[in-house]
Amino acid sequence: MQINLSDMSDFARGSAFLGTGGGGDPHLGRLFCETAIRQYGAPKVISLDELDPEANVYTIAMMGAPTVIVEKLICGDDAILAIKKLESITGRPATALMPIEIGGINSTLPIALAARLGLPVVDADGMGRAFPELQMTTFNVYGVPLSPFVLADEHLESVIIEAMDGKSAESIGRAVAMQMGLAVMISCYPMKGADAKRAGIAGTMSAALGIGRAIAEGRRHGDPVQNLLSYLRTTAYYHHCREIFDGKIVDLLRETTRGFSIGRCTLEALDHSQSRMEITFQNENLVARQDGRLRAMVPDLICIVDRETGEPITTEALKYGVRAKVIAASVPPMMRTPQAIDCFGPRAFGIDEDFVAIENLT
Amino acid sequence: MQINLSDMSDFARGSAFLGTGGGGDPHLGRLFCETAIRQYGAPKVISLDELDPEANVYTIAMMGAPTVIVEKLICGDDAILAIKKLESITGRPATALMPIEIGGINSTLPIALAARLGLPVVDADGMGRAFPELQMTTFNVYGVPLSPFVLADEHLESVIIEAMDGKSAESIGRAVAMQMGLAVMISCYPMKGADAKRAGIAGTMSAALGIGRAIAEGRRHGDPVQNLLSYLRTTAYYHHCREIFDGKIVDLLRETTRGFSIGRCTLEALDHSQSRMEITFQNENLVARQDGRLRAMVPDLICIVDRETGEPITTEALKYGVRAKVIAASVPPMMRTPQAIDCFGPRAFGIDEDFVAIENLT
Repeated sequence: MQINLSDMSDFARGSAFLGTGGGGDPHLGRLFCETAIRQYGAPKVISLDELDPEANVYTIAMMGAPTVIVEKLICGDDAILAIKKLESITGRPATALMPIEIGGINSTLPIALAARLGLPVVDADGMGRAFPELQMTTFNVYGVPLSPFVLADEHLESVIIEAMDGKSAESIGRAVAMQMGLAVMISCYPMKGADAKRAGIAGTMSAALGIGRAIAEGRRHGDPVQNLLSYLRTTAYYHHCREIFDGKIVDLLRETTRGFSIGRCTLEALDHSQSRMEITFQNENLVARQDGRLRAMVPDLICIVDRETGEPITTEALKYGVRAKVIAASVPPMMRTPQAIDCFGPRAFGIDEDFVAIENLT
Repeated sequence: MQINLSDMSDFARGSAFLGTGGGGDPHLGRLFCETAIRQYGAPKVISLDELDPEANVYTIAMMGAPTVIVEKLICGDDAILAIKKLESITGRPATALMPIEIGGINSTLPIALAARLGLPVVDADGMGRAFPELQMTTFNVYGVPLSPFVLADEHLESVIIEAMDGKSAESIGRAVAMQMGLAVMISCYPMKGADAKRAGIAGTMSAALGIGRAIAEGRRHGDPVQNLLSYLRTTAYYHHCREIFDGKIVDLLRETTRGFSIGRCTLEALDHSQSRMEITFQNENLVARQDGRLRAMVPDLICIVDRETGEPITTEALKYGVRAKVIAASVPPMMRTPQAIDCFGPRAFGIDEDFVAIENLT
């Protein structure tokens, strides 16, 4: 598989959909990636099956609040520095890059860096979507340590964290990221190919491309959202899916606080029923309730898309008056095990409710 | 020179005096140091003159707020970890330890660690006193980089910072220290013996011991404060000194905020003149004003001591009702150059006034 220049628009759009509100602005991710591909050529994308068990797989991502990331352009040298620092700590040069999460910036970034460094990029990630905190990965759930964890900023300052667990690494890293301006490059979870095969979620980069293409195709044939849902039903992970609301944004509370973009978005139905949906978010959308009734909850996907074009709307781009549909979808089974739900289910976000899968909600 | 078990009480007391309110609780510093000397023997204390220009001199200190440090006991393994991490980054094993500042904990800690590691400790430091921020050193003023900068906590977590300058290293380090609980071990300013000779302040460990002894001797002969002043007048740096107030603490504002212990202490004269002295502090005492008139200002020393025993009172130990004398003293000439005053003069603390030396104030 390869992701070429002509795929970038679809890939970034599909990534933003799986970002469920987070993962960064797809337009920025696309521009950065296109520049790298033009200059260095498209990197090879390899599946987890093709990956050498002895490969040194490193992640690269941007950490911060999406509201800040749109104001601070991507430099690239900082990302290279983060990877090089991690190599110097482990003593092993990277032989492949992999995204931590799928999102508008965080799944395009590894492609751009892989192009620049002449490395393959792995068609997998640790979230199957985007999450706000770094320990919320299948890597962490299935025993791959987050540390050593490197952060680097645009002044080419760097910080290397070796923490006792993923949660502590995230807390220290978040404090550093806030001090560095809340939009920094990170590289962490250095792992062997064998670890990636065991703890990574296979095929999520391909899924992002497929989702982006389905939305674009739907536009040419009249109904992007229906086409998107039809495509999701053919995927391995996201096949339990449905449109859970069709409305207009009538209220929005969004703060950049504690190192995140945190808030609540309320939509009102367009059918004059006065029905309302409230979606809470911490970078990513967490819970959707319609008139107080639960419609979908983390880790299942809750995605707000433009009701005409199907374009995913990230949390930093939410605006009063926008007409949007809300899509909910299932996540991979390895993200719904008890230990996975402990790590990134509702209680990990302070929501005192058991996880209920989208297919068990009406 | 050697600092033996029997000297520790005087040394910790004198260090606390030079700490000008900060540098940590001398009792804790003394206990930790005595334990190390009992177990490993007293380390050799060498002068800057004796130091090999090719020596690898590393610092070790505690970073945080003194109000927190009194509640979090010193572990020691974290300090060893900080030094070892710094060695692994520079690739050069430490051949001597040196304090960053003189203070109740921060000048005893290098003695304890030198004892444990079998290294000599250098009779010098980078502040000639204590300061609240890490870039406020003669090392930084005279061209020794603060980074690489290691922090380690009691869980043996570590963070390595490589920042563009001392101020940025301090800001990132402060954020990390706050996340780690605001009392962490640090090692930074790795330097050659030649750098220490050029940028260090010679003889400050000896001075601390001399000061502590002078106070103790004064107690045996009736007037610890007068004996202290007489001794200071014989020293190379602190000879411009005077008692600037004699009173009782009548008001105290102290907050642990922004990673520091920040506040204001007001004393009222005991002579019924109703004259008042207000001392502001950020971990260390910054400015003393009597009835609005400037009496002493940073970087000159402002020390609050018990009016009967001469025992230095650190900011976290200030209490309503305590009867105290306030001593002000000059600092080394290399701390009063224009570039030094830029780094740790009044404006570095947000006080919009030119520095006036104690000997030019009446």
